[in-house]
Amino acid sequence: MDASSYTIGIDYGTNSVRAVVVDTADGRVVGTRVFDYPSGDQGVLLDAKQPHLARQNPADYIDGLRVSLGDALKAADGEPGFSRDRVIGIGVDTTGSTPLPVDAHARPLAIDPKWQTDLAAHAWLWKDHTSAAEAVAITETARVYAPELLAPIGGTYSSEWWWSKIWRCLKVAPDVFDAAASWVELADFVPAVLSGVNDSAAIVRCICAAGHKAMYSEAWGGLPPKAFLGRLDPKLADLRDRLYDKAYPPGRPAGALSEYWARALGLRPGIAIAMGGFDAHYGAVGSGIRTGTLVKIIGTSTCDCAIAPVADTIADVPGICGIVNGSIMPDYFGIEAGQSAVGDLLKWWVEGICEGGEALHAELTREAATLSPGQSGLVALDWNNGNRTVLVDTRLTGLILGQTLRTTRAEIYRALIEATAYGARAIVERLRAYGVAIDRVVCCGGIAEKNELFMQIYADVIGQPMLIAGSPQTPALGAAVAAAVTAGAGDGGYATWTEAQDRMTTLKAQRFEPRADARRVYDALYGIYRELHDAFGGVPGGRPDLATLMKRLLAVKEKASGAGV
Amino acid sequence: MDASSYTIGIDYGTNSVRAVVVDTADGRVVGTRVFDYPSGDQGVLLDAKQPHLARQNPADYIDGLRVSLGDALKAADGEPGFSRDRVIGIGVDTTGSTPLPVDAHARPLAIDPKWQTDLAAHAWLWKDHTSAAEAVAITETARVYAPELLAPIGGTYSSEWWWSKIWRCLKVAPDVFDAAASWVELADFVPAVLSGVNDSAAIVRCICAAGHKAMYSEAWGGLPPKAFLGRLDPKLADLRDRLYDKAYPPGRPAGALSEYWARALGLRPGIAIAMGGFDAHYGAVGSGIRTGTLVKIIGTSTCDCAIAPVADTIADVPGICGIVNGSIMPDYFGIEAGQSAVGDLLKWWVEGICEGGEALHAELTREAATLSPGQSGLVALDWNNGNRTVLVDTRLTGLILGQTLRTTRAEIYRALIEATAYGARAIVERLRAYGVAIDRVVCCGGIAEKNELFMQIYADVIGQPMLIAGSPQTPALGAAVAAAVTAGAGDGGYATWTEAQDRMTTLKAQRFEPRADARRVYDALYGIYRELHDAFGGVPGGRPDLATLMKRLLAVKEKASGAGV
Repeated sequence: MDASSYTIGIDYGTNSVRAVVVDTADGRVVGTRVFDYPSGDQGVLLDAKQPHLARQNPADYIDGLRVSLGDALKAADGEPGFSRDRVIGIGVDTTGSTPLPVDAHARPLAIDPKWQTDLAAHAWLWKDHTSAAEAVAITETARVYAPELLAPIGGTYSSEWWWSKIWRCLKVAPDVFDAAASWVELADFVPAVLSGVNDSAAIVRCICAAGHKAMYSEAWGGLPPKAFLGRLDPKLADLRDRLYDKAYPPGRPAGALSEYWARALGLRPGIAIAMGGFDAHYGAVGSGIRTGTLVKIIGTSTCDCAIAPVADTIADVPGICGIVNGSIMPDYFGIEAGQSAVGDLLKWWVEGICEGGEALHAELTREAATLSPGQSGLVALDWNNGNRTVLVDTRLTGLILGQTLRTTRAEIYRALIEATAYGARAIVERLRAYGVAIDRVVCCGGIAEKNELFMQIYADVIGQPMLIAGSPQTPALGAAVAAAVTAGAGDGGYATWTEAQDRMTTLKAQRFEPRADARRVYDALYGIYRELHDAFGGVPGGRPDLATLMKRLLAVKEKASGAGV
Repeated sequence: MDASSYTIGIDYGTNSVRAVVVDTADGRVVGTRVFDYPSGDQGVLLDAKQPHLARQNPADYIDGLRVSLGDALKAADGEPGFSRDRVIGIGVDTTGSTPLPVDAHARPLAIDPKWQTDLAAHAWLWKDHTSAAEAVAITETARVYAPELLAPIGGTYSSEWWWSKIWRCLKVAPDVFDAAASWVELADFVPAVLSGVNDSAAIVRCICAAGHKAMYSEAWGGLPPKAFLGRLDPKLADLRDRLYDKAYPPGRPAGALSEYWARALGLRPGIAIAMGGFDAHYGAVGSGIRTGTLVKIIGTSTCDCAIAPVADTIADVPGICGIVNGSIMPDYFGIEAGQSAVGDLLKWWVEGICEGGEALHAELTREAATLSPGQSGLVALDWNNGNRTVLVDTRLTGLILGQTLRTTRAEIYRALIEATAYGARAIVERLRAYGVAIDRVVCCGGIAEKNELFMQIYADVIGQPMLIAGSPQTPALGAAVAAAVTAGAGDGGYATWTEAQDRMTTLKAQRFEPRADARRVYDALYGIYRELHDAFGGVPGGRPDLATLMKRLLAVKEKASGAGV
């Protein structure tokens, strides 16, 4: 290339939106800006009477686009070599499943003064769990009448997903449901905004949201058949006609930058708008995902991604969130799993219970690092926010076991880290058991970068070296990679994903190796975790011997402490 | 009576000793003093390498006797009508089982410079749990060769008890074992000191320690037969000859005040020294125990006492610490049960985990009081210090279940109170199931007097009004009652226990009634507690359905919160 070209990645998180301007030659960030959503509690609309409710204000999405991207470009303006006319494409990643109702002009209902105060008319954030009953009913109905629908999504439909939420809206706010011309995932909404789409029927839908969250598959002609939806509610069958027939993998454009937004941002109109995608999937791209690599995006929750060539036959993996052709990259199955609370679990302990802040996180980490594996005598279940994989059950809760009168807050802090590591191991074991190769684990997110104790425990528990993605903003970087591939080699981007990833993504030099001694102890503790997991999670055929469990744990503790009884 | 007479009660607790001087006419305290043991950590000698070790320095006992009693008498001197020559008897209660090795002159080995630094030569405090393996071996040996020994002590021998500790000493400190002419319970040691006993063979032993802790029964001729002890270790069989043949119920004198101590204290020599007893038993006396009354002495741990006339046939009650003829009062079976951590469990949470003090106890109590039963969605097991009744297993540990990311420290505080209430209910149910009538529950101890939330939860969970003893120092008062009965009517005391209790003990006006709504919720939660209790405690025939337990608990929570899903 004679001169550099640039792409933009925009990452819609739970509390804020981040824009990055990236040099396509090497992935270097030349400008970035974070915008905190102004509405609700750190961007989340809550309802004291419904503890499982979590919504967002769509106006925050549009304000956030304008501010974060505008300011990121201003920051880039100062960089040598950068100019706005060298920006060749924009990629967007978001949380999901985060559906919102829109009118016939593809405008969010919640922007209409008529619906502004109705929480049902806002975006139903991924972690909204009000739809537990609907999820159960969808799963049960599918098991009887259309079991094929459940195969690619792990066998259980979640309350966090598209149909559960829309059906819930139909039940509790039928006026909102009736007013909606269509529903759209946030991941498809933002590219449509940037492309100037003003017809709800013209919104381009990504396969990643459709396949992982909406039971979309070409095997049965797209979204679930009307006959199936009609068993849930005839109005859901009617809605199907106002949704979409086809969803697309990343790599092709979702649209082209509209005149309006080009003018607002000082960019060339018509540059490529990449297909939207979920943060985890584009985070995997930004972490250099390839066959055999598990990418762990570790944040408040954790999302695990793997890919496998579509040429291979991959069995459906029960309890895994989804296996969808093209959801991460075209020509690969995208495989997604996850844990509902990881950073959130530690935050609960440190901030919610111990009433500390960042300093206490650091202090407890230091103190916990002085403990040997097993020394605390504690085992916890990491279910304070339910279990996403492999049990797919939001109505599971936390458990801490093994406390004595001398148990410390640092011991519990470590036990909670370990619990999330056991949960992570359960996912790896499930994937491998169903033929998904995992020979490399790449982690990204703040915890992976900052907490060495956490990473070492994961290496010891999982028995695999833990690598760390080079970028601290892999989802935004992945979206920028997608924009570079979508723009294509002719416009200063790349012809292939592999080439774009090789040039634009890196790994950190630091890596964490499993230690043999620690692995032996953690193998025993993981066995105890699995007994609790299987007993309380209702896994058929588990053989828990709970009557001796506390004593076996004490034996591990005493061996680890070198203490006499 | 023409002029008042007075008795003294001396209460040896875990951290301090308290002396009270009491008017026998009405139980009024005319002088009192607390002496904190100067040795170790608040009076307890610890060993960082052995977390289960807890010993005490016998020198503290003698210093404490001199200071607490001397100062209590000085305080009484100022009271109208009091004079030291009107003191007619002294009673002593102590923790137990707290055995200590003594030489041939009944002096504690630990006072000898040769043994001063050897922790095995000190008193083995009730909560020393180093003897878990010995307790298991004693139980197993008795089950095979002498099951009758286990019947009156609930079927399982505890690591907190006499033979476990002495055998442990023989194993880990054989030189101490060999140097001991005899061993003595603290409850017998102090009366022997006051009586000037200087021959280990002349120490008078109380039935309460012998029967509840040392497997003493007249049914098999006193202590366990040498053939049984020899199966444990031949040296234990030899030791039996240097212990005692006979133990006595309260009411008869353990001795008479020696010239030395009379001079030291300004009291009449020869006044009655009552039989020593455990704090719980004399606490029950000081709380006005009678047939049908359960006395709960609620402190760091809880001790439950009931009595039943020996004329009645009482079945052995499995899992109950003991049923011993005459251990609380003569002519009644003394029935003892207990919970290993109650106040200690709340202290662990507030001080150990939340790092607060008295103010935080009060704050969490206030906040917890605003919650409805079931609203937290939490159930805990109260086993951070093992389970004394009904499982008799020090190697059980704590469990907290039902946490979400919104669970607060006040919710857990309440869940821990509730856990101890469930444990208390399990004891009541076990006693009733084996024919022990309980129609009145009298509580004593600081928590009972200060924490209304705690008392209301107990009333709601147990389904019985909670009454509170009138005295804040029921063990010391009970010892003073025993001294008045031992001195007898002729010397200004009382001829019967009933008369002495009627005159010297009271109840507070405040009482806590069970509330029907709360009872219904707690009945459901107790069912869940029992599933966990039976599964982790290894109760045969339990039918836990752990796979649905978390969800049933959530259902209780949602109903209690009035929240939609």
